[in-house]
Amino acid sequence: MDGTVPPRVLGIDPGLNITGYAVLELAGRKATVVEAGVVRGRDRGSLPGRLDQIYSGVRDVIATLKPSVMALEQLYSHYERPRTSILMGHARGVICLAAQQAGIEVVNYSATQIKKVLTGSGRAPKIQVQRAVQQELRLPALPEPADVADALAAALCHAYLAPSQARVNASVRHRPLSA
Amino acid sequence: MDGTVPPRVLGIDPGLNITGYAVLELAGRKATVVEAGVVRGRDRGSLPGRLDQIYSGVRDVIATLKPSVMALEQLYSHYERPRTSILMGHARGVICLAAQQAGIEVVNYSATQIKKVLTGSGRAPKIQVQRAVQQELRLPALPEPADVADALAAALCHAYLAPSQARVNASVRHRPLSA
Repeated sequence: MDGTVPPRVLGIDPGLNITGYAVLELAGRKATVVEAGVVRGRDRGSLPGRLDQIYSGVRDVIATLKPSVMALEQLYSHYERPRTSILMGHARGVICLAAQQAGIEVVNYSATQIKKVLTGSGRAPKIQVQRAVQQELRLPALPEPADVADALAAALCHAYLAPSQARVNASVRHRPLSA
Repeated sequence: MDGTVPPRVLGIDPGLNITGYAVLELAGRKATVVEAGVVRGRDRGSLPGRLDQIYSGVRDVIATLKPSVMALEQLYSHYERPRTSILMGHARGVICLAAQQAGIEVVNYSATQIKKVLTGSGRAPKIQVQRAVQQELRLPALPEPADVADALAAALCHAYLAPSQARVNASVRHRPLSA
């Protein structure tokens, strides 16, 4: 699977209103942004209508940008708002479905794991994660909006933790967690 | 929409392992079971794989049995196991997607509402709900397994609460809740 076509990772930050996505291309020791953006659920739409928008949007991203794997932030049960996390589960469900139907693997990372891999601390503040993403991907400014920044971070985390696919700027700060 | 084709309600009890479904046909004051059964997620399958099975199964049920509406039990946040309810949210997400893509409306009912409509008490034990379903649908035995019983109960609840579509054996016990 290596060789002529560099592997691409799709990072996703799921949300019912806005789902962030980011596709990174991994070539040798470098990760490059292919495309990053958001998929929007219809304003004021019904839950099923929004889910269909998210599903279609993610399916289109996969069909167009052809990633070989999806990196997704794990949902945890100790959210402050359980109702929000259940609803988020709905969005995550149709996103996983889009990946499955396209034949690409879904890999889950916890928020703590993503932070730790990118900054060295599982409790790093958001801004520190954004700076790490900016630096690593040589972006002209901090990644925005937050949904895109989180999607980039998930994809980058996978790049670090999947050494067969990528060895991206493996500086000390970015040393992968042990499995 | 009324007239020659009697309306059909699809009740769904979502689950990652087993999703129960039940299609009722509503004719005049009577609800009749068209078909009831379960859709199974693959044993030991990945989450995306299971979601695809559930999605495909529900889509097939809709395509074959042509219901005009889906009645779904609402997920609540005060579950004993938040992790379970988040995972259930994934299943519910792809089920809502299947309904949306088939152009049928999704109506949510809380477990309390379903129990109250079927038995008169929102705290009725499971067996009492099953007996009400059995009696109302003139079943030879208590509905089984639990997934199918819950799907039948959700569909029947919708039948009572959607008076334009159905006025099913509106005995005093089954008096609809006020909206």
